[in-house]
Amino acid sequence: MRAAYNEQMTDLAKLLGEMAGLAGSAMERATQSLLQADLTLAEQVITEYDRIAELSQLAEERAFALLALQAPVAGDLRSVVSGIQIVADVDRMGALALHVAKIARRRHPNHVLPEEVNGYFAEMGRIAVQLGASAKEVLETRDPERAARLREEDEAMDDLHRHLFTVLMDRDWKHGVAAAVDVTLLGRFYERFADHAVEVGRRVIFLVTGKMPTDADAPLHSAQ
Amino acid sequence: MRAAYNEQMTDLAKLLGEMAGLAGSAMERATQSLLQADLTLAEQVITEYDRIAELSQLAEERAFALLALQAPVAGDLRSVVSGIQIVADVDRMGALALHVAKIARRRHPNHVLPEEVNGYFAEMGRIAVQLGASAKEVLETRDPERAARLREEDEAMDDLHRHLFTVLMDRDWKHGVAAAVDVTLLGRFYERFADHAVEVGRRVIFLVTGKMPTDADAPLHSAQ
Repeated sequence: MRAAYNEQMTDLAKLLGEMAGLAGSAMERATQSLLQADLTLAEQVITEYDRIAELSQLAEERAFALLALQAPVAGDLRSVVSGIQIVADVDRMGALALHVAKIARRRHPNHVLPEEVNGYFAEMGRIAVQLGASAKEVLETRDPERAARLREEDEAMDDLHRHLFTVLMDRDWKHGVAAAVDVTLLGRFYERFADHAVEVGRRVIFLVTGKMPTDADAPLHSAQ
Repeated sequence: MRAAYNEQMTDLAKLLGEMAGLAGSAMERATQSLLQADLTLAEQVITEYDRIAELSQLAEERAFALLALQAPVAGDLRSVVSGIQIVADVDRMGALALHVAKIARRRHPNHVLPEEVNGYFAEMGRIAVQLGASAKEVLETRDPERAARLREEDEAMDDLHRHLFTVLMDRDWKHGVAAAVDVTLLGRFYERFADHAVEVGRRVIFLVTGKMPTDADAPLHSAQ
């Protein structure tokens, strides 16, 4: 029973890690499609989101089977419940990469971004990819200290996002309202992607330690 | 055992319904604070989000206790697992109302919205309140047909949101980039609020019928 639980739980953790990895690489390609107005890449991200959605369903089914067949208790039960919650976060990370790719596709052959903000998105993309890889690592290793560092990585994203808003709000913004609307939504998508990665870290900390990191500085509360 | 399960599951469903109701009334007041530049109302929504966050934690703990003590199987297990997933959706609905209130507070004593789009937000607010009430009803009654109607209510939100974007993108938009950025984010918050209500409906359909409504028209895929 115990061996079966361990094996199935390891499989579930791997699957969640794989999903986080896929979300990170989707965001990498979505960012390139955005920066280079590359329609093929954008289409690829859009098509491949189906794979993430499939894996979400598979992960939910596996977690359900684990509960039904192994009836885990205490820490084991906490791991499975956290797994169910984490599915929603990594699925959403994939969906946010999809949203970025859809904007790139909608504006093609034009570039979505005014040149002035390319650097921000290149950097936000880099951090998002790193957060996807970190989330994958944290899901596979369950290292709570590594999980806590996700929050630090997210701070760099928040800083960039705040700066981006000052650029947008500046009277010197010369690119019109339509570009500002796209930049606003895109900035939000990257920031939410990072928030979900942090949330994965918080869930892993909870499943290992039994304590949820305090909510005071949780990404839930960030408004823009 | 069975009686205990039923009682605890009813309690959990009531709690989730209460959260959806609170999220709806938070969005109602957030919308008023936005339309009337009412700081007191905005502050109230911001403070009262703590209550929703508390109830989220309580609901997660109760669902966990149900799994640990009752070890439910089959349909009962599905109900509890769906409950855990629904917590995240209703919590997020509350957080989105909070975001709206924060924007109203940030711009106070100014109005956030150009008069031209007030009507859109009054109507999106009305639909959001209705969606909160519908989600509450669906959680309490578990009526799958009622749950399916959440999607229709959401269509009205999507239509408004699309129209709002055409207003923003119009060359006649005279209110500058800063107002456009706020309107973009706010529109997104209302739309996401509605998406989460629809997701609650899908989860209830799943827990009653054992089948998830097809993902093809799921709100997950909406990009802006």
